[in-house]
Amino acid sequence: MYHLLPGLSIIEASSFVASPTAGLYLAQMGAEVIRVDQIGGGPDFNRWPKADNGRSLYWENLNRAKKSVALDLGKPDGRELLAELVRRTGQFITNFPVNGFLAHDRLAAGRADLITVRIMGLADGGPALDYTVNSSVGYPDLTGSGPEPVNHVLPAWDLLTGGYAAFAMMAALHHRTATGQGQEVRVPLSDVAIGTVANLGSLAEVLTTGANRDRLGNAVYGAFGRDFVTRDGVRLMIMAITPRQWTGLVEVLEIKAEIDAIEQARGVAFDKDEGVRFEHRDVLFPLVEQKVAGLNYADLQTALDGVGGCYGPYQSMLDAAHDPALVANNPIFGEAANPSGAHYPAAGSFATLPGLDRTPPAPAPYLGQHSEEVLAERLGLSSGQIGALIDAGTVGTHG
Amino acid sequence: MYHLLPGLSIIEASSFVASPTAGLYLAQMGAEVIRVDQIGGGPDFNRWPKADNGRSLYWENLNRAKKSVALDLGKPDGRELLAELVRRTGQFITNFPVNGFLAHDRLAAGRADLITVRIMGLADGGPALDYTVNSSVGYPDLTGSGPEPVNHVLPAWDLLTGGYAAFAMMAALHHRTATGQGQEVRVPLSDVAIGTVANLGSLAEVLTTGANRDRLGNAVYGAFGRDFVTRDGVRLMIMAITPRQWTGLVEVLEIKAEIDAIEQARGVAFDKDEGVRFEHRDVLFPLVEQKVAGLNYADLQTALDGVGGCYGPYQSMLDAAHDPALVANNPIFGEAANPSGAHYPAAGSFATLPGLDRTPPAPAPYLGQHSEEVLAERLGLSSGQIGALIDAGTVGTHG
Repeated sequence: MYHLLPGLSIIEASSFVASPTAGLYLAQMGAEVIRVDQIGGGPDFNRWPKADNGRSLYWENLNRAKKSVALDLGKPDGRELLAELVRRTGQFITNFPVNGFLAHDRLAAGRADLITVRIMGLADGGPALDYTVNSSVGYPDLTGSGPEPVNHVLPAWDLLTGGYAAFAMMAALHHRTATGQGQEVRVPLSDVAIGTVANLGSLAEVLTTGANRDRLGNAVYGAFGRDFVTRDGVRLMIMAITPRQWTGLVEVLEIKAEIDAIEQARGVAFDKDEGVRFEHRDVLFPLVEQKVAGLNYADLQTALDGVGGCYGPYQSMLDAAHDPALVANNPIFGEAANPSGAHYPAAGSFATLPGLDRTPPAPAPYLGQHSEEVLAERLGLSSGQIGALIDAGTVGTHG
Repeated sequence: MYHLLPGLSIIEASSFVASPTAGLYLAQMGAEVIRVDQIGGGPDFNRWPKADNGRSLYWENLNRAKKSVALDLGKPDGRELLAELVRRTGQFITNFPVNGFLAHDRLAAGRADLITVRIMGLADGGPALDYTVNSSVGYPDLTGSGPEPVNHVLPAWDLLTGGYAAFAMMAALHHRTATGQGQEVRVPLSDVAIGTVANLGSLAEVLTTGANRDRLGNAVYGAFGRDFVTRDGVRLMIMAITPRQWTGLVEVLEIKAEIDAIEQARGVAFDKDEGVRFEHRDVLFPLVEQKVAGLNYADLQTALDGVGGCYGPYQSMLDAAHDPALVANNPIFGEAANPSGAHYPAAGSFATLPGLDRTPPAPAPYLGQHSEEVLAERLGLSSGQIGALIDAGTVGTHG
């Protein structure tokens, strides 16, 4: 946790990955993020993976450092409480339907300078998820060795959409500070996906060539990079995208003579142009493969480190969790009192700010833990009024 | 393009994907982003894919709406011009080495409230790329049907890091406005990756269970979702994560009787809990597979649309580029006069702001196109001084 955003409060009404991620990034930078859920939990409250006691490990990690208010959103009263919290707060992140009871224009009728950042599936309001957007834009068709498409497992579009939404909230705040003007910012998963295809030059590529790229398995397009296996059976990704990385690799593998011969035979130079290294992978890959297969991983690692080489071993997620550089010795992790009661390293902000103190990662709230506090502070309700709402089943609390 | 960020200027000294992405997102929201490169181009200037005339389609899409200054960064004079541009501007995005001539403390010695957002490989300054970080945190080990690890093709960690860096820049600006304090914000790819493993609950999962997840091929963990193939050979991703999506799917496939029988035999209910649908995929997948295989895609599509179903066909990237909903009829795309001379749809901001006018996507600059303008405006150099720097080879211009 860093405290870069004191004084910024945001209401979040969301579920699944993208919208909670936007709130998480803001909360980990010190914003007060109040997540409002249906009493008993929204559609993502019980998502896998789960702890032994049934608590969602997913939910308690994507909602760290937030406050929780539980309302019965099936009732007009509960909906109006949420709408009023949004109006009083002025900043709202949601993936609720664009034209439903949380439509921006309805909310802004009582708060002209409201900022709503709305994560959507399709831009027209239709349903879409990371996986359905991904299949539509063509990445599975390029992933793996073929012939069948391979889905990514990382929900990359959700995460990128969440990060972009956090940025968009801050940009809209910047604009409001300058102009006084609020607005709705809509971020559809499908536009993040196809826009990214364009940003990486791939839309231009397929339209100008009229063809799809070949599948490359674990090789990297347009550069020298692939997975190789050492004598002792360690698979690692080796990349050489800068001249220094390439000459370092040639030195470590002791293949200068072979490379010189290939360059002469083919009339090319590999050290200045990563594209040329990619074009001639038919001869470079087998050569590197053979040399890597003759070395033990520890020796290769030491040698590559000595030349500033760029590589990474393939680790399972459990290996990664036990990798001290990634977790145990990594200051982004700390202890937190999780609702599941499970003990494991909790992540804080991805960013490190050497000039500020990093405080430990905060836990996710219990559902409804802050209902009374938030309704009192934000809506000015008395304890009697709140008690009546609890008795009526409109407001939920923890414990 | 939207003009949410007028008055915000940022110097960007960067290459590859993450750092230019941060600048791109800011530029597409209206910030003035001045990318400073080595004369002749940085290490990413000629990256694949390329147009017929040799121009990088990658570069001209990741650098839209930016200005370009070209300097000889091998010379002390050129380095000092860049450092002075950073000091005079006050906001800086870079992936240059943490302890090099663009170290934050050196720059901030002349500009106490400077904000530097620095994208890094490893948190200790060591080299890492999307692909090497990805292999280290365990996603390839979970991707595909096995037994070998499968790399993602989408540079997801680069993109998420870029998006997060754009957010972090805005958060640091917010903080500076409140406190007057500038700072360095470091965003290492490796921390984005392992932090994401944690945020999704997966770090907690593997540490509490002591085991890795099974590979699931194209199935989605913890929910109902997989690829299926229709009678006419169309592969599509079908998801059912909400109760409504599940009951809609059951209705469309006319499998209510079969589902009732399974629920009774196994003593479970599928409609309320996506985890239960995942647990019983051994029987649900074959049933859905058989029913989908009996339908033509067009009929299945119409029926799923009728119940708010969530699905997406697998398209190649070329199919996606020709999908009117994704590109031709999508207002995020427009025409731009690209340096390559190639004509293709250019993307603007992923976000849509119904309350503001979207202006057409801007093209990437020619290298050095804005050198004279920026040096005159920002550093107050006279045309004679700039001319001397050009003659000395310290400053490059276009044309």
